[in-house]
Amino acid sequence: MAFKTISAQLAAKLDQELMGPEIGFTLQQLMELAGLSVAQAVQKQYPISIYQKRQILVVAGPGNNGGDGLVCARHLALFGYQPVVYYPKRSSKIEFYSQLVRQLDFFGVPVLGSDDKWTHYLTSPETVCIVDAIFGFSFKPPMREPFGSIVSELVKVQNAVPIVSVDIPTGWDVDGGPVAGTDSLAPSVLVSLTVPKPCANKLQAGRTTHFVGGRFVSASFAKKFGFEPFPYPFTDQVLKL
Amino acid sequence: MAFKTISAQLAAKLDQELMGPEIGFTLQQLMELAGLSVAQAVQKQYPISIYQKRQILVVAGPGNNGGDGLVCARHLALFGYQPVVYYPKRSSKIEFYSQLVRQLDFFGVPVLGSDDKWTHYLTSPETVCIVDAIFGFSFKPPMREPFGSIVSELVKVQNAVPIVSVDIPTGWDVDGGPVAGTDSLAPSVLVSLTVPKPCANKLQAGRTTHFVGGRFVSASFAKKFGFEPFPYPFTDQVLKL
Repeated sequence: MAFKTISAQLAAKLDQELMGPEIGFTLQQLMELAGLSVAQAVQKQYPISIYQKRQILVVAGPGNNGGDGLVCARHLALFGYQPVVYYPKRSSKIEFYSQLVRQLDFFGVPVLGSDDKWTHYLTSPETVCIVDAIFGFSFKPPMREPFGSIVSELVKVQNAVPIVSVDIPTGWDVDGGPVAGTDSLAPSVLVSLTVPKPCANKLQAGRTTHFVGGRFVSASFAKKFGFEPFPYPFTDQVLKL
Repeated sequence: MAFKTISAQLAAKLDQELMGPEIGFTLQQLMELAGLSVAQAVQKQYPISIYQKRQILVVAGPGNNGGDGLVCARHLALFGYQPVVYYPKRSSKIEFYSQLVRQLDFFGVPVLGSDDKWTHYLTSPETVCIVDAIFGFSFKPPMREPFGSIVSELVKVQNAVPIVSVDIPTGWDVDGGPVAGTDSLAPSVLVSLTVPKPCANKLQAGRTTHFVGGRFVSASFAKKFGFEPFPYPFTDQVLKL
């Protein structure tokens, strides 16, 4: 399906307006719906009934993309998967992130920190896929550690284990795509949130299944930002493009 | 399907624990998921493709049941319905409710107040159903105005237009069911949130389709409160009981 994209700058403005005084969405609401949509994309792409395994590694970054990953992991647990979260750098600035971690504890989902061993999950035969929720549309290179090394680890296994990237394949330039001279992720699934960003045009044809998720904007708002509202079917929170 | 219920008192305790320091859910998260589940039940019961009409009247009460209704109305708009909200008594205590109203403005959903005419929506041939999001499990009789009169209006039309009640048919005793000597709602759909309350056993067989929604508790938590986790299919947020 042909799709419009919006630049990193415009995506920031869109988010700001959604959570601004006029529209009044909160981060908690949007993150809940975004994370739910990513979990739904995983279920559509890798249904338990077909794959017969349940383990999913979710790698969460320090900001909102990571928050989406934490929410996604919880919904994956509710859908019957066995997520494990690797969350090496936790921000104490936003109390809500700690609450998301406590919610994962509630579901018995392990949340590993920087001192925990995590790389064996990458190659475990039980792992269905890896959710890359490290950086999103506000990422600007260069990548700091430990995330550079983490991406290198993901790149090593990506031909054996599918990667599901949330909004942006981590490390890609949001507007430009893969960055020359760096280890470059080639996800099997990309879930663009609200609307694809320009880098989605650089996905390898035939390799990446592209979904849009984050069903929370009005038709008039979409048009104002230069795209058509996506024809989500029924009550689905994701649409395969 | 046979189902367990929990009393009004236990339901209050359950909610308190979910939002307590240990589990750490926020009202905004739970309300988003609860409202989404009610909208999904409406879509399953009254799909646009079959009913060929889109208007839905959502009557929202002053508390959390009303908040669920406001969220539900937004998701109904996203699903292609044309909701109209009647919200006669707005609490200024919780700023988030005002934000939910602004979010409805964003989708062009009319939110009527106590001075607005609303009863013509009850009998409009365009109305698919009426969502009763007036009072939930914390309701204790007697009902105050204007809600007593509103329920009387709903009772007058309920054999012509289906009523979808959120968690509890408004006015029913949560543990006991319909209250003798009052106008009593007989909803066509009940969406119990998290787990049915005892009054759900008093639904008229053959009249009411019963769903459970609010897919956000762990299996161990359910068992602690004396019920089995519900077998929601796939990524569905509701399950028909």
